[in-house]
Amino acid sequence: MKVSVIMGSISDKECVKDCINVLKNFNINYEVKVISAHRALFDLQAYCEQEKECTDVYIAFAGKAAHLAGVIAGINIQPVIGVPVKSTALDGMDALLSTVQMPQGVPVATVAINGSANAAYLAIQMLSIRDPQLKESLIQHKESMREHVLDMNKALDF
Amino acid sequence: MKVSVIMGSISDKECVKDCINVLKNFNINYEVKVISAHRALFDLQAYCEQEKECTDVYIAFAGKAAHLAGVIAGINIQPVIGVPVKSTALDGMDALLSTVQMPQGVPVATVAINGSANAAYLAIQMLSIRDPQLKESLIQHKESMREHVLDMNKALDF
Amino acid sequence: MKVSVIMGSISDKECVKDCINVLKNFNINYEVKVISAHRALFDLQAYCEQEKECTDVYIAFAGKAAHLAGVIAGINIQPVIGVPVKSTALDGMDALLSTVQMPQGVPVATVAINGSANAAYLAIQMLSIRDPQLKESLIQHKESMREHVLDMNKALDF
Amino acid sequence: MKVSVIMGSISDKECVKDCINVLKNFNINYEVKVISAHRALFDLQAYCEQEKECTDVYIAFAGKAAHLAGVIAGINIQPVIGVPVKSTALDGMDALLSTVQMPQGVPVATVAINGSANAAYLAIQMLSIRDPQLKESLIQHKESMREHVLDMNKALDF
Amino acid sequence: MKVSVIMGSISDKECVKDCINVLKNFNINYEVKVISAHRALFDLQAYCEQEKECTDVYIAFAGKAAHLAGVIAGINIQPVIGVPVKSTALDGMDALLSTVQMPQGVPVATVAINGSANAAYLAIQMLSIRDPQLKESLIQHKESMREHVLDMNKALDF
Amino acid sequence: MKVSVIMGSISDKECVKDCINVLKNFNINYEVKVISAHRALFDLQAYCEQEKECTDVYIAFAGKAAHLAGVIAGINIQPVIGVPVKSTALDGMDALLSTVQMPQGVPVATVAINGSANAAYLAIQMLSIRDPQLKESLIQHKESMREHVLDMNKALDF
Amino acid sequence: MKVSVIMGSISDKECVKDCINVLKNFNINYEVKVISAHRALFDLQAYCEQEKECTDVYIAFAGKAAHLAGVIAGINIQPVIGVPVKSTALDGMDALLSTVQMPQGVPVATVAINGSANAAYLAIQMLSIRDPQLKESLIQHKESMREHVLDMNKALDF
Amino acid sequence: MKVSVIMGSISDKECVKDCINVLKNFNINYEVKVISAHRALFDLQAYCEQEKECTDVYIAFAGKAAHLAGVIAGINIQPVIGVPVKSTALDGMDALLSTVQMPQGVPVATVAINGSANAAYLAIQMLSIRDPQLKESLIQHKESMREHVLDMNKALDF
Repeated sequence: MKVSVIMGSISDKECVKDCINVLKNFNINYEVKVISAHRALFDLQAYCEQEKECTDVYIAFAGKAAHLAGVIAGINIQPVIGVPVKSTALDGMDALLSTVQMPQGVPVATVAINGSANAAYLAIQMLSIRDPQLKESLIQHKESMREHVLDMNKALDF
Repeated sequence: MKVSVIMGSISDKECVKDCINVLKNFNINYEVKVISAHRALFDLQAYCEQEKECTDVYIAFAGKAAHLAGVIAGINIQPVIGVPVKSTALDGMDALLSTVQMPQGVPVATVAINGSANAAYLAIQMLSIRDPQLKESLIQHKESMREHVLDMNKALDF
Repeated sequence: MKVSVIMGSISDKECVKDCINVLKNFNINYEVKVISAHRALFDLQAYCEQEKECTDVYIAFAGKAAHLAGVIAGINIQPVIGVPVKSTALDGMDALLSTVQMPQGVPVATVAINGSANAAYLAIQMLSIRDPQLKESLIQHKESMREHVLDMNKALDF
Repeated sequence: MKVSVIMGSISDKECVKDCINVLKNFNINYEVKVISAHRALFDLQAYCEQEKECTDVYIAFAGKAAHLAGVIAGINIQPVIGVPVKSTALDGMDALLSTVQMPQGVPVATVAINGSANAAYLAIQMLSIRDPQLKESLIQHKESMREHVLDMNKALDF
Repeated sequence: MKVSVIMGSISDKECVKDCINVLKNFNINYEVKVISAHRALFDLQAYCEQEKECTDVYIAFAGKAAHLAGVIAGINIQPVIGVPVKSTALDGMDALLSTVQMPQGVPVATVAINGSANAAYLAIQMLSIRDPQLKESLIQHKESMREHVLDMNKALDF
Repeated sequence: MKVSVIMGSISDKECVKDCINVLKNFNINYEVKVISAHRALFDLQAYCEQEKECTDVYIAFAGKAAHLAGVIAGINIQPVIGVPVKSTALDGMDALLSTVQMPQGVPVATVAINGSANAAYLAIQMLSIRDPQLKESLIQHKESMREHVLDMNKALDF
Repeated sequence: MKVSVIMGSISDKECVKDCINVLKNFNINYEVKVISAHRALFDLQAYCEQEKECTDVYIAFAGKAAHLAGVIAGINIQPVIGVPVKSTALDGMDALLSTVQMPQGVPVATVAINGSANAAYLAIQMLSIRDPQLKESLIQHKESMREHVLDMNKALDF
Repeated sequence: MKVSVIMGSISDKECVKDCINVLKNFNINYEVKVISAHRALFDLQAYCEQEKECTDVYIAFAGKAAHLAGVIAGINIQPVIGVPVKSTALDGMDALLSTVQMPQGVPVATVAINGSANAAYLAIQMLSIRDPQLKESLIQHKESMREHVLDMNKALDF
């Protein structure tokens, strides 16, 4: 099983990091690429063609008029997760609406603005439909999140 | 494989229809429930507990301060698809932001406002990770969408 | 009488401080907890069960898709005050709409984005319905606010 | 115990109805008035002076630049619930922000746009801090809401 | 000289009409197509390849997450005019931001939401850079618009 | 002739400065006060009563749920200019809508967010209806603004 | 004393009516014109030149990218009141921002979206700086508004 | 062939730089001016009159209530490209709406907020309708953009 992570511009690199760290922690096979839907459409299509039998989930990072996730969803039948990246103007609202408001038949599974880690968690949840061991890892992770929150109460000093 | 469709209020029923029609067209096993996260939380938890080994994907419909998808995502490790439902005020923006802006570790795969059919397509894409036959159906559907669009050119009379 | 202050994440801690200071100034009995509705729902329910006869007002702090106040309002019959916490994107608008746009029957008394101190004042006003002495304190506080504003005129140097 | 319901304009009358119905259902003592903060400020102050020892909670309805709840909160120490009323432009966002974004020391407990019934429920929750019988009524109402939601499942025909 | 008008969905047809009427009035050579960037990307590329030496200006109509204009701009070097089409939710703001917020190097000349006629006028202005006769027609049109506005004063009856 | 400048909070002081500088440059008689509509309503009314025959124009500065200008407009028949002050959240949109969306019969002449200097220019324009000399000063100022803009061209080094 | 009312398009005519009715009620000398800043700029300048010594206040109605009030403010030194007119998209927010966010030195006194009557009241308030009789009329109008609001209480039937 | 670049205020200078650099790289004949539509309208008209036979495309930079591009479009028949400039409040949304929402017959080709370089690329695309050599340059630039994006993959270290 494989997750392909594509960012539309190298400027999204910082935002991508959290996603990769989560994929690593769950030992997910992944590949990271910079391929713009606007500047390298043929290369994007070639990559998707090559990945037709390999990639199970796409994760796309893009800001502003964020078309990358939508274009990948148009090319493929695999689920595509879109991460709207906040840029200097409009607080990320442009990227969010460009990513989530997809027309019928071509969904993009949109996560929060800069929701990089959640894109990875969502991809892992999808893969876990096929892989029972990932389900176990997700259950453990959920429990560790719970413990982490409750531990915080020890440090409260109000 | 099973998809559980939950609406937060019976008033979301009209919006749910498109989703169910798509699931039917792809012969997906599904169940529809009205369970509010605010008015019937214990029942929601009981339903999720019961579905722990049965449901592969959740689809949640909710409007206004749409917490349903997020609460289901907090309870389960299965992927949760959230459909923000447009209500009388704020044009659905409240439901969109309440659904998509989830905190780290608890993603909701958000589709467009009233994106009911797309929630079904996304669920089917997720299930297709395990089921190669669904992949074939999705490929055929993609081709039929393409043909449908191109057919429209015959009727143009500009 | 007791006010329970719950934050959804330790990252809301800074915002919570103003609220606690006001509660202290009015000698209100309070307890502060970090309990996430998404990451520790059972613990949240357990806490509310335990507080059923003790807590008179809940104050909930949460950012982004801020579901905490709404979920607490779903569990309890006590008034719940929601403080939308501003986070890095969308200027707090997501938290505001997720907190205030609650469905019928499950209100959240929403204050301003980061309106931490006002959450405390509102809780005290609610408690003063039962406690005449708190009414006196609130009247004095109102008068001191007035004097503080008028004093500012002495320092004006335009 | 008494709830005073004030609308800024007779045009808010339709929206007020749901609130009154809920107050009636819970046998709450209430009074309804039309008093504009902009057109009848002295009358508003006179009414509040007269109600100083009688009214326990204020509910204010106003649209557009909705100042009514804020002005009442400035005059009194009782809790003030603000209902932003949707008018023809801006989808009620103007009324919401004018009601909720109050400065420190003068909170308004804001409910959803046109959240008329919820204003009543919130007022009743506040009164229940003093009145244990109201707590019982609220518990019964919560249970009936739950049953109503679950009953909806019988009518589902998907 | 030729203008290619592409709509992403047949549902944009009504909006396209004003554009075509203006092109007809100025005797501009045009072609209208329905080709979705998401559902028929290869066909869109084939059409652009075929039009490489024929089309001088593209006009693209799309709603919601309106990627069509941006994708055409990515494929071609001709100027691309984008018309954000208002759909049922969000008042056209999603289409506007998805169309106008393009990344560096790939501009879309965006007109108003549903600014169908203006897309035609803008295309004609672009063509007039090469065609002096079109300049004359535009000057006459500008004068007739002025006269039309001033004529309106005769009918005023205040 | 006199302009009364009222800020709702001492935190608006920095924003007020530009306004005062313009009033000084035009030798306008002015007075500056800090009086909150929420914290010192009686004092605001007393000040307006005292100024009934003296003040010709009010300028009100307020942020967040900016009610000050509207309340002053409710009390007086003089024109009231409202300056929405940008605060930490929502980019000043809350203050703008709270100031400009006034109900019929009680207008507030709203200027841009933080449009402090423009509030003064607008007040001077109003006073110039009575004072022909101010008209001359405004004409000179308009010409000097023009010259200032055109002078900028000398420094361009593109 | 004279008020000049200019609308940018005949489609604003319906919105203008309330303004004219108020001016008539106060016996204000007025003139109404349709002159577009974009389609008839020279005519707008000619009108303003002709009115240099006659018009005391301008009221400008415009929708969408509402430039009319701003352009009139750039030409003249008289106060300019801008009425943002709601059109089919964006709920009037575009007209509001285009009218109110004017640069330094060129203010527009902006009223609410479709705030037609208030534009007239504001103009009358400005004229009353010179005309004491108008002050009397405004005081009477304020009292009649108050009475009208209080009368509404007789018809309440809750 | 000539491009005229006009900024409404010297404060837009920093934003203009990217545009000029692109024009230089393509050896386009250009002129840069600071001329405000509000402060120097006659000078703007005089400049346009002088450029009637020389300038092929206008590029206008303006922030806040950005009227400059619209006014230039009203005066001329050449295509006008508008760049909404982000200023301190509202994140550039005011400038975007003031620029793009133009009325019928007077289009402005709007690019992204601060989309300075794209304004130049769009102007060059327009000029290339007449100049085949520019088409070649644009094709080369498109290819170099593609290579630049793909080169980024070499530096990825995830």
